[in-house]
Amino acid sequence: MLKQEDNERLVRVGAGKPAGELFRRYWQPALLSSELIEPDGPPVRVRLLGEDLVAFRDTNGRVGLVEAYCAHRRAPLFFGRNEECGIRCTYHGWKFDVDGRCVDLPSEPAPSTLKDKVRITAYPTLERGGIVWTYMGPRDRMPAPPDYEWTRVPDTHRHVSKTFEQCNYLQALEGGLDTTHSSFLHNNKLGDTNALRQRDLAPTLEVEKTDYGYYYVSTRKAGADGSYVRVYHYVMPAQQMRGSVAGWSGRNELPSIHGHLWMPIDDEHTWVFNFVYGYDKSTPITPEAAEYSESFYGRGKDDLIPGTFRLKRNKDNDYLIDRAEQKTSTYTGIKGVNTQDYALQEGMGPIVDRSKEHLGTSDKAIIQMRQLLLEATHDVERGRAPKAADPASYRGVRPHDGLVPAGADWRDVLGGEIVAKW
Amino acid sequence: MLKQEDNERLVRVGAGKPAGELFRRYWQPALLSSELIEPDGPPVRVRLLGEDLVAFRDTNGRVGLVEAYCAHRRAPLFFGRNEECGIRCTYHGWKFDVDGRCVDLPSEPAPSTLKDKVRITAYPTLERGGIVWTYMGPRDRMPAPPDYEWTRVPDTHRHVSKTFEQCNYLQALEGGLDTTHSSFLHNNKLGDTNALRQRDLAPTLEVEKTDYGYYYVSTRKAGADGSYVRVYHYVMPAQQMRGSVAGWSGRNELPSIHGHLWMPIDDEHTWVFNFVYGYDKSTPITPEAAEYSESFYGRGKDDLIPGTFRLKRNKDNDYLIDRAEQKTSTYTGIKGVNTQDYALQEGMGPIVDRSKEHLGTSDKAIIQMRQLLLEATHDVERGRAPKAADPASYRGVRPHDGLVPAGADWRDVLGGEIVAKW
Amino acid sequence: MLKQEDNERLVRVGAGKPAGELFRRYWQPALLSSELIEPDGPPVRVRLLGEDLVAFRDTNGRVGLVEAYCAHRRAPLFFGRNEECGIRCTYHGWKFDVDGRCVDLPSEPAPSTLKDKVRITAYPTLERGGIVWTYMGPRDRMPAPPDYEWTRVPDTHRHVSKTFEQCNYLQALEGGLDTTHSSFLHNNKLGDTNALRQRDLAPTLEVEKTDYGYYYVSTRKAGADGSYVRVYHYVMPAQQMRGSVAGWSGRNELPSIHGHLWMPIDDEHTWVFNFVYGYDKSTPITPEAAEYSESFYGRGKDDLIPGTFRLKRNKDNDYLIDRAEQKTSTYTGIKGVNTQDYALQEGMGPIVDRSKEHLGTSDKAIIQMRQLLLEATHDVERGRAPKAADPASYRGVRPHDGLVPAGADWRDVLGGEIVAKW
Repeated sequence: MLKQEDNERLVRVGAGKPAGELFRRYWQPALLSSELIEPDGPPVRVRLLGEDLVAFRDTNGRVGLVEAYCAHRRAPLFFGRNEECGIRCTYHGWKFDVDGRCVDLPSEPAPSTLKDKVRITAYPTLERGGIVWTYMGPRDRMPAPPDYEWTRVPDTHRHVSKTFEQCNYLQALEGGLDTTHSSFLHNNKLGDTNALRQRDLAPTLEVEKTDYGYYYVSTRKAGADGSYVRVYHYVMPAQQMRGSVAGWSGRNELPSIHGHLWMPIDDEHTWVFNFVYGYDKSTPITPEAAEYSESFYGRGKDDLIPGTFRLKRNKDNDYLIDRAEQKTSTYTGIKGVNTQDYALQEGMGPIVDRSKEHLGTSDKAIIQMRQLLLEATHDVERGRAPKAADPASYRGVRPHDGLVPAGADWRDVLGGEIVAKW
Repeated sequence: MLKQEDNERLVRVGAGKPAGELFRRYWQPALLSSELIEPDGPPVRVRLLGEDLVAFRDTNGRVGLVEAYCAHRRAPLFFGRNEECGIRCTYHGWKFDVDGRCVDLPSEPAPSTLKDKVRITAYPTLERGGIVWTYMGPRDRMPAPPDYEWTRVPDTHRHVSKTFEQCNYLQALEGGLDTTHSSFLHNNKLGDTNALRQRDLAPTLEVEKTDYGYYYVSTRKAGADGSYVRVYHYVMPAQQMRGSVAGWSGRNELPSIHGHLWMPIDDEHTWVFNFVYGYDKSTPITPEAAEYSESFYGRGKDDLIPGTFRLKRNKDNDYLIDRAEQKTSTYTGIKGVNTQDYALQEGMGPIVDRSKEHLGTSDKAIIQMRQLLLEATHDVERGRAPKAADPASYRGVRPHDGLVPAGADWRDVLGGEIVAKW
Repeated sequence: MLKQEDNERLVRVGAGKPAGELFRRYWQPALLSSELIEPDGPPVRVRLLGEDLVAFRDTNGRVGLVEAYCAHRRAPLFFGRNEECGIRCTYHGWKFDVDGRCVDLPSEPAPSTLKDKVRITAYPTLERGGIVWTYMGPRDRMPAPPDYEWTRVPDTHRHVSKTFEQCNYLQALEGGLDTTHSSFLHNNKLGDTNALRQRDLAPTLEVEKTDYGYYYVSTRKAGADGSYVRVYHYVMPAQQMRGSVAGWSGRNELPSIHGHLWMPIDDEHTWVFNFVYGYDKSTPITPEAAEYSESFYGRGKDDLIPGTFRLKRNKDNDYLIDRAEQKTSTYTGIKGVNTQDYALQEGMGPIVDRSKEHLGTSDKAIIQMRQLLLEATHDVERGRAPKAADPASYRGVRPHDGLVPAGADWRDVLGGEIVAKW
């Protein structure tokens, strides 16, 4: 349960709003590098934190991320010409470089100096881990570049993707930090009580706060196998890294590590960036393995509306729920693990009214995340750097999961695995 | 003409609004029983009076009508599992029975008592006449179950259906209480001046107030046949029963009685429940007769968008009006008697501005209905039961129509017919 | 740049708003005469200045333009019967003539006098130049009928059309008064530096205020050919007449004169009326020439969504931009000169925030137009007739363009051509 006032504080992401300003203090994922393949290729519309932007890769391969409208008379730069180190408005040929400087203004007779006075908003960008990152906050507060373990592995050992979600980021992030629901929502084999997540439906949670947010340890009784333990990391403001090596019964997957970042498009829409990377150097993520994983989560090549990042199984068609299958075979009757997530998260409506909730002990991690975010909004208001702005805080971590024999401490068994190895 | 202030008082149906509270003092039609065929079948989304609900038929055949979101973190129960006497949220397995009690909460470790503290809103339901009825008001004000004649006849002698209308309930109800328009809008044979409703376009109206609302008597001159008289009942807040046995020229229909109930979905959308029932025991409503009637009204099997209650001929396609047919053959060029109604009623816009009206004597019944509704909203505000809450007020009535010879009193000729016989 | 307050003053067109009242002081184009071909034919929905209207051609060929809803209970007259000199509501048969008088009211019993008290809003209309014009302001301020040169030429020498634009009228009008962009946006042959508009990308502008608004003269250096000069007329409040005889390189067109009128549908949608007419008596506009011109501008028969005035290449499909073509062949990769305009104008969003602009000397004509409109709104508020209300102010003008040898004054060379000859 959250007071309406605190809920508002967390869900509004526009400029000047508490959470909006918080998100603007981090390097954030703007789009996939693969959306801007070639230099001087087509510009791409990008909407982030309620701002309409245009991204383009210039002649030298640098990525520009600029406001969507020309400084002159507000014509849309999306229709612009991306050429010779800048994007040129097709209305009167005004041209801007990746830094937002006007570098050509051919419609004014010489000796006009208008060019020197004109700029458009341009956010700094950098590319790491297959992602174009941007920083949309005050320049004097700009942190060092993002440095997650998954951004350091070679491209051969990582796969990233992006999906569109039709709701506020917070209810999506909450789903991502919630281990318990995977025993229900993601139960894709009804009656299989031997699966690790089915042996105990009510895990206990311990949350440890850190400089980057927290990690939490969920423990499920696993009978003769002892306990099934998962370690999640929450990296502020909106990243999850989860242990899922041992968890999926019947799944023949390479040892790999998974996670998501949620990036608000605006108050009611979210980009979900998904990553998977190799557990160790002997675990490349081949194209086949990547597609297997994407498809398992419901966002494989055949699962997306062509030319978009939107699922074919979506809110408009009730995720193609199959009620017969729900009776006999899977918990939801909906195909795709993340599609199941979206059905629940989007089905809550655009923004959850958290004053109507009833939380339990299994919601500990979510409660803690909200508190951290609330504190961080106050930090920003007081002029302090929020947690996790400094990459040193999180660069050494990775998540994990595995079995812990009865009587053993999870730290002794799995502790060595929750340390970054790349 | 209605003052803007009174119009607002009548058209807003959300909780806390005058008309919203009035509607909440009656048993109201929520959905068709046939939408919930089998126990433990798929849940159905229901929106009533601005509230999002989910209906399900439990293992014992009881119908639950509960709020659409789980008490835990507001996940949508529509995607829930309907099983073993309750609906189970697919997020964390919380389960609720038809009374809204949480009967299982498997995601919390023992010995949690959270289950006992958790409830969701559940409205009482009952089934009569092929309809699931619900009462959404304060429990201590709940009236006795609905008891219309059409709900008492055996299933073999009744047919009910439901259609979606894209406007406020009041302009739809007004159309339903208006006999005069049937001489114009529903004139489906131009030039047939012998049809009873074409012989006199300006009926006179007498309205008699009753404990359930009113009945009114419309009289059209019918030449050598005397007068054509129709008796309508208005049962508050939004039911019409109409005499239509003799009225349709060229129509070869069994003697039967018809009517509608209008149930606000929200301020701008309405469910129309339609009923037809046998005039007497020798008049079963066979499936063929039912489909003939539905089709005549424009809502037969081929007239609906599959899987919905929306007409194929609808606002988005101008009801497929055929202007050539309008010139030569029917008054509107639109097929289907109720489709004609919807064209006019929806074409007024979502909510009519009644301050711009010019009413005549033919609008007597409508004027009276508005006054009764306004009075009833005041009754509710003063803590009184509104008219028609008590089924004793209306259980004995039925509508009728027929010819009355010149010089005779309609009461002598038709009076015996406006009494319920089932 | 425009203060937010002045921008609001110019962009809002509803009744009672400054620009809305200004537009209501002129005869305005309502629809094409060809939309109402036959007497007693189907009525047409028309929305103008935020008002919902219905147009119909009565039995005698007169055009009625009346409010969209019946005076009785606000049923939509669009579904009405257009017959015997009036439009008849299909709800209860009330009938109104082109002057808004109720001429039949059959639903009331004699001797009702209700008919005499009932009227609906009806705006006066007249037809000139293939257009139905209307005047929506106070009757005592109604100006003389429109009298543009293009409305005077015989039908054989004129072609008019209409297109739907999905943005506020002002950004569309600004595009229409802007000559400079044609050197960029409409450059449909990259690399052709010999084309008159490509030889000089930064024309100089002189604006001369007149009683009807202004004319302006743009001058582009044309090398050995001297200068390329275009004379535009801005006829208030929203008409452009442009010189385009000599301008299009490689185009084999008859000498003809072109222009547009922008008529606000509401704040966020606009009708664009397009005209072309013969330069002189020997220049008829044949159907082939008309279709050639329409097609060149992107609004030919194959360019419109059938049954509408909306382009197939529109905002929803990014105007079918072809990025490869944009690289190699045309400035935009978008087909159709006016489609290019719409891409930019609609792409600005529904209403431009002009407080974020940066204007140059090439925007002189636009700046002057805004000032004239602002002054005219104040004229109306002070009870004065705005400029251009009197047709005498503009009846003698026409636009032109052509080459002016070095050292010559454009007036000496082209002056004789900017005078109406019809």
